Amino acid sequence: MIKAITSTQNPLIKQLVLLKDKSRERKKKGQFLIEGKRELSLSIKGGYKIETLLFYPDLFSESEARAMSQYGIEIIEISKDVFQKLAHRDTTEGVIAIVNAKPHTIEELKLTSKNPLILVAEAPEKPGNIGALLRTADAANIDAVIIANPKSDLYNPNIIRSSVGCVFTTEIAIASTKDTIDFLNKYNFNIFSAILQESEPYHTQNYTLPTAIVVGTEATGLTQEWRNESKANISIPMQGVIDSMNVSVAAGILIFEAKRQRDFN
Amino acid sequence: MIKAITSTQNPLIKQLVLLKDKSRERKKKGQFLIEGKRELSLSIKGGYKIETLLFYPDLFSESEARAMSQYGIEIIEISKDVFQKLAHRDTTEGVIAIVNAKPHTIEELKLTSKNPLILVAEAPEKPGNIGALLRTADAANIDAVIIANPKSDLYNPNIIRSSVGCVFTTEIAIASTKDTIDFLNKYNFNIFSAILQESEPYHTQNYTLPTAIVVGTEATGLTQEWRNESKANISIPMQGVIDSMNVSVAAGILIFEAKRQRDFN
Repeated sequence: MIKAITSTQNPLIKQLVLLKDKSRERKKKGQFLIEGKRELSLSIKGGYKIETLLFYPDLFSESEARAMSQYGIEIIEISKDVFQKLAHRDTTEGVIAIVNAKPHTIEELKLTSKNPLILVAEAPEKPGNIGALLRTADAANIDAVIIANPKSDLYNPNIIRSSVGCVFTTEIAIASTKDTIDFLNKYNFNIFSAILQESEPYHTQNYTLPTAIVVGTEATGLTQEWRNESKANISIPMQGVIDSMNVSVAAGILIFEAKRQRDFN
Repeated sequence: MIKAITSTQNPLIKQLVLLKDKSRERKKKGQFLIEGKRELSLSIKGGYKIETLLFYPDLFSESEARAMSQYGIEIIEISKDVFQKLAHRDTTEGVIAIVNAKPHTIEELKLTSKNPLILVAEAPEKPGNIGALLRTADAANIDAVIIANPKSDLYNPNIIRSSVGCVFTTEIAIASTKDTIDFLNKYNFNIFSAILQESEPYHTQNYTLPTAIVVGTEATGLTQEWRNESKANISIPMQGVIDSMNVSVAAGILIFEAKRQRDFN
């Protein structure tokens, strides 16, 4: 017999609405919600532990749900009302899961390649930009993304959505700027900080050794601490009228120049 | 004596609300609204003709407005209510202008450099992506952007905003895919179409001759017509779990590889 919830006033459902909407609640519980089949599959592939799967049987079959229960996942059937209350997206597939957050501590970052390539994003704020950064990180298969001095909760539904699930497939650490710099120095990374003033054109530098590419926000750039820690400060030549680019586009250009120099190995 | 409008029910104001909200109205009138000092300045720099400037005197000084009237621009003082009715953004500078649209015909595209570099975006839809493409085009100072088979009106307020005004500083043509291909062939462009299947890694190609880089949408890619018109079909190696990137990030990577090969000249 599968447990079923039909009331949007059910205490668990009320709690899950908080989990969807409130970063504070996600931090307190150490859990977050995901929605959709691909996200579910990518989170499992990314080693996340699914606690509970809620499915609306008109859109997600009971047999699929039962298959998940073999892996120790609690399954709960929900009504259309409850599903709509919990769903974040317009187009959905009738499945929502309660997932345990990962710690994302920098000490536990696993770097296995000889000359790792890392992206550091300091204080990124817009979910759409963070999502695009994570998609680029996935496409380039870089070793890790470090988010320094985070401004947003990584499990914000808009980040999960705009990353098209890459938030689950990328090795991510979250740390203060100071701890990030200590980590990069400890492992002898060459730090290349994207700074517009007094910097070298990005394409003149060598990114084939252990490399960290560091980008800041569009509004305020990087904090001063990075300037003196860098092997070189780098910039993309700005030849137009406006002197800024979208941060996720800029990061894509820098990362793929590193990949090109490494011949995509 | 400066003309003043204080009622949101004024016929001109009602018409301008339509102009702000409705693409159809913009097409019919051949006009659109811009908002903010930078956008105003960039549109003038970009050769746009400002018809009327509406200013809210608590935020935009009368003397600044009077200075504009020297250039044959009608100036109208508006009340706070009227300003808020017309303003699209949260943070604004008390100034809104009625601007004449440009024709953007492909025949009138001005190409002055010996080996022009053009970006073609086919059927782009999301204003944020179009804005980011235009920012990249400005930063790289490429010769033109051609929008083939457009899905959005270029003067959509969200495109203007997300382009941070680059919609005014970039040479833009709008045409059908067929006319775009005819134009590129007529002027002997090497066409490089971003197509994932059966394509060459982008960094193995030569972009130093007259070059058109063509990108499609994330959802459906490029139409089949492009494949046979290309000097080469190109792709960015996808080495992760997901096989797509944000279209504006991908375009940024391709354009700046071309710029790198041209040594940013």
